[in-house]
Amino acid sequence: MPLEALRYELTPVGLHYLLIHFDIPLVDAEMYELCVGGHVRRPLRLTLEDIRSRPSTTVAVTLECAGNGRARMSPRPLSQPWLAEAVGNAEWTGTPLRAVLEEAGVRAGAVDVVFTGLDRGVQGGVDQYYERSLSVAEASRGEVLLAYEVNGGPLPPQHGFPLRLIVPGWYGMSHVKWLRSITVAGSPFQGYQQATAYHYRTSDQEAGAPVERILPRALMVPPGVPDFMSRRRFVDPGRHVIEGRAWSGRAPITGVELSDDGGASWSPGNLEDAGPPFAWRRWTCQWDASRPGEHELCVRATDAAGNTQPLEQAWNLEGVQNNAVQRVLVVVGKADAVQAPADSR
Amino acid sequence: MPLEALRYELTPVGLHYLLIHFDIPLVDAEMYELCVGGHVRRPLRLTLEDIRSRPSTTVAVTLECAGNGRARMSPRPLSQPWLAEAVGNAEWTGTPLRAVLEEAGVRAGAVDVVFTGLDRGVQGGVDQYYERSLSVAEASRGEVLLAYEVNGGPLPPQHGFPLRLIVPGWYGMSHVKWLRSITVAGSPFQGYQQATAYHYRTSDQEAGAPVERILPRALMVPPGVPDFMSRRRFVDPGRHVIEGRAWSGRAPITGVELSDDGGASWSPGNLEDAGPPFAWRRWTCQWDASRPGEHELCVRATDAAGNTQPLEQAWNLEGVQNNAVQRVLVVVGKADAVQAPADSR
Repeated sequence: MPLEALRYELTPVGLHYLLIHFDIPLVDAEMYELCVGGHVRRPLRLTLEDIRSRPSTTVAVTLECAGNGRARMSPRPLSQPWLAEAVGNAEWTGTPLRAVLEEAGVRAGAVDVVFTGLDRGVQGGVDQYYERSLSVAEASRGEVLLAYEVNGGPLPPQHGFPLRLIVPGWYGMSHVKWLRSITVAGSPFQGYQQATAYHYRTSDQEAGAPVERILPRALMVPPGVPDFMSRRRFVDPGRHVIEGRAWSGRAPITGVELSDDGGASWSPGNLEDAGPPFAWRRWTCQWDASRPGEHELCVRATDAAGNTQPLEQAWNLEGVQNNAVQRVLVVVGKADAVQAPADSR
Repeated sequence: MPLEALRYELTPVGLHYLLIHFDIPLVDAEMYELCVGGHVRRPLRLTLEDIRSRPSTTVAVTLECAGNGRARMSPRPLSQPWLAEAVGNAEWTGTPLRAVLEEAGVRAGAVDVVFTGLDRGVQGGVDQYYERSLSVAEASRGEVLLAYEVNGGPLPPQHGFPLRLIVPGWYGMSHVKWLRSITVAGSPFQGYQQATAYHYRTSDQEAGAPVERILPRALMVPPGVPDFMSRRRFVDPGRHVIEGRAWSGRAPITGVELSDDGGASWSPGNLEDAGPPFAWRRWTCQWDASRPGEHELCVRATDAAGNTQPLEQAWNLEGVQNNAVQRVLVVVGKADAVQAPADSR
């Protein structure tokens, strides 16, 4: 998501970030069926029409890739080289998962609920369908959705057509796209994307901690205009309003601060009224750009659970959960030359 | 555009390639005006409603970035590191530019028509609005559109909301987005994106040749399933149908050939019936994947003007017009291990 798209409360389709592990599957909606089975009393097979005829709800959710910020780490962990743009906020419409699980009748002794996608590929030498699990308790949260619409329109192929999981508050890897089946398991799920990938660890020898809920982050719309190659920003001298969004999957955002000296000093920003609980929140902050030359703008968010963004990231093997503060290099002043637009010459 | 999206005749919004030089401007459609001026008898100011009330037409057009394939060049020219994915095919709806120019009354002595976008930034040390020009003759072609819809919906911000230029057959840089003005000029336009950038040259000393019409290219949907990290493909032994699309902005496509030995030998593919003249054309080709191990699949297209894709690209400074054949490394055989999906265990 280009960061100027932080201006939109709802990220337009085509600007929302995407992480697609394997290929986008081609799905025939007419032939589509979702299988719900495993450790349940009444296995279900649901067509898309069955799912769309169930009670529906719409929830605004900020999704962020667990690897957002990875490209800022040194040495850089080998995977998608995100800077800070792996985020988006959209309205997802679907039917609550909880009622589907209730209808299937989760049996005593159930441990995990496994979500299998139609997308298949090889990772770590293992040929696999993309699969992630949630504990039965997490899967039974009222906000967890089987979603078939985004921003009021049908899911496009890249967002999981015809059906995907939405787990508000969690990093993107848990929102399984192109759902093929839901399998209730009587023992902890040990699939590749659950037990091997998506762990915070600093060496291969560690078991590590699983990646789950989104850490707080604030991002700003980079002010001024960019240089094509360096992406350095040029800003006219004067007072500017810096704007952006902040979010956390762990607790409500309680504060945002701005720095124009690389994090040495901070000024408080203004948080707009909170909206839906799992959606990002707009903030603004005055910046007095009176001194010509280079400035490093930084922003950091804090949530009600006391989580604050660090100035420097602790390195980890997969480059996940990197919520170090955003840094935007801004030059107060002019480019070398100006080409007046043709309509003003 | 992920290459599996070659399966769609019309590329869904969000899968079509994008090249955004500066920032996506935020445009208020209510306040929007297009200025048509310069070397004309009757300067015009058109609101979006004015433009939408004019005669409309819809045209399917394949757009490709002039820098597609750049990342395959060595040393790699410094700019967007496309592999082969900078393409898309969409239906654009708008009003013909020719009638707008006729209404404005292009004056004798007019040379170029300059299209200025609302997007501004710095490139080559020059602070500029994005601007490109066409000759009066090219701008007066019947198919050149001022487009306000894509695939039947309003332009999303990233595709030039509220209005963009569509120049069927030309590389993407000429399809100016977020149109601010159209200025008829009495002398050749010398703006940065016209006179400096987008030239085929091998050194800074050359004037070079301007980039204009799209060279032929065929791309295949990579068969089988990908490895997450290497993007190498795994395919089961047996007969496969390889499918893809081919296009040229210079003449109709007349042939597509497939190779499974890195271009040493070629088999003819089947071209489907031609559709709209500026849209890509589907092709298929049988591939007998009976020998286990690595294969390098290649595809090449030829057009009616006799242009054929080269096996190796001639290096150039900006990495433009690189239409060397696509190469897809495919392993016939199995990954090291298989994780059966949870629903089949």
